[in-house]
Amino acid sequence: MQNIYDNETFFESYLSLRENNEGLNDVLEIPAFRSLLPDLQDKVILDIGCGFGESSKWYAENGAKKVVGIDISQKMIHKAKEINADKKIEYYNLPMEEIEFGENEFDLVVSSLSFHYVEDFCSLIKKISNVLKPNGLCIFSQEHPVVTAKKINNGWAKSETGAKTHWILDNYQEETMRKQTWFVDGVIKYHRTIATIVNTLIENHLNIQKILEPISTSDAEIINPELKEERRRPPFIILKAMSVK
Amino acid sequence: MQNIYDNETFFESYLSLRENNEGLNDVLEIPAFRSLLPDLQDKVILDIGCGFGESSKWYAENGAKKVVGIDISQKMIHKAKEINADKKIEYYNLPMEEIEFGENEFDLVVSSLSFHYVEDFCSLIKKISNVLKPNGLCIFSQEHPVVTAKKINNGWAKSETGAKTHWILDNYQEETMRKQTWFVDGVIKYHRTIATIVNTLIENHLNIQKILEPISTSDAEIINPELKEERRRPPFIILKAMSVK
Repeated sequence: MQNIYDNETFFESYLSLRENNEGLNDVLEIPAFRSLLPDLQDKVILDIGCGFGESSKWYAENGAKKVVGIDISQKMIHKAKEINADKKIEYYNLPMEEIEFGENEFDLVVSSLSFHYVEDFCSLIKKISNVLKPNGLCIFSQEHPVVTAKKINNGWAKSETGAKTHWILDNYQEETMRKQTWFVDGVIKYHRTIATIVNTLIENHLNIQKILEPISTSDAEIINPELKEERRRPPFIILKAMSVK
Repeated sequence: MQNIYDNETFFESYLSLRENNEGLNDVLEIPAFRSLLPDLQDKVILDIGCGFGESSKWYAENGAKKVVGIDISQKMIHKAKEINADKKIEYYNLPMEEIEFGENEFDLVVSSLSFHYVEDFCSLIKKISNVLKPNGLCIFSQEHPVVTAKKINNGWAKSETGAKTHWILDNYQEETMRKQTWFVDGVIKYHRTIATIVNTLIENHLNIQKILEPISTSDAEIINPELKEERRRPPFIILKAMSVK
């Protein structure tokens, strides 16, 4: 289990990225993710890889009855309790590999950009399926398989002038660990194909309801035209599935 | 509606490719496709884009009660009647855009590598959903969206010595026509994202059961090691969905 978020350099760089809304999360991933959410009124929600609690807080403020936020990083959970505390939220310093909640405990399990860090995806999905109520929803985003496939650090091929010429795709069927540099060296992610992701959900009684490969909001693209580059290859994939156990 | 298969040059080149088992169909697409089929005993099957009837014939020989094979190409239907006739098969020269069969007429609708030729995918899927019995299955393969996305003819980037360095991915969100050269100039295909393909099925009451991004059979890879290159990017996608109307 990787705990890169407790690395001092990584933690500070990541916080700064998120606080300045510099990343793709705010303009691309979060709006698409939230468009998939059901009415949150009175829902009991598990937020896996909650980070510093930005989304957990938002769920609490938007009608959830109870939110459980878990994260492997002690620093993140500390920060979450500091800046995104709420009487409806319980934060736990816990890796997603070790979720041990009651059967049928949650109406909704959400996870934003965490699942590409988990080695045993099938075991994770099995656990989620177990803690979800019948008809409960699992909504998660992760790096798109055309992104996690790459073994080199930067997937863009570039011209001599530095312009992006195309996205490099390779090693797609090699479902193994990928070591990358993101703020620090040795960030570990796991590549899985779209087929594996979808079929693992289905085999664990999670019925696919929608898949998104989001682009930036039009407002964001007007402010920052460079975001249009994200249309050239999908950076993220978001899946919504319903428990049919 | 495109009828490239009635082009003399295209038709002869395509037949030669298929008859010599030179293409990826035989070693990669067909084995994966058939692994998704249910027991065919007494099934009424619609085979969309049946070509020269190779698969229609196989369904008839493997228990189907009735097979309806349709294809836009008169030449293909002529050839199908000539080499793959069977008393259980009806062949019609009909474009897939114009299927007009009875409601709930089929247990199984199959289509092999045809749907990337259709412009209005949603209308096609609506028609399929309509002719499928409740709990009936739709299984189809098409070129993978990482392949249809490309605007240039060859998606492999190559080194000076001609070795494949990686697959070129670009223009992913641009869901429009692509003109390619395949035996002849001006072969028209339509690119759609994975999200669009999956969500169109779901919106038309077709519940995703499985997705495959097939690799070659191990036998074929031993005989022709070059086939391992297909692992570097998925050439095809195959979807299996069940009618839940």
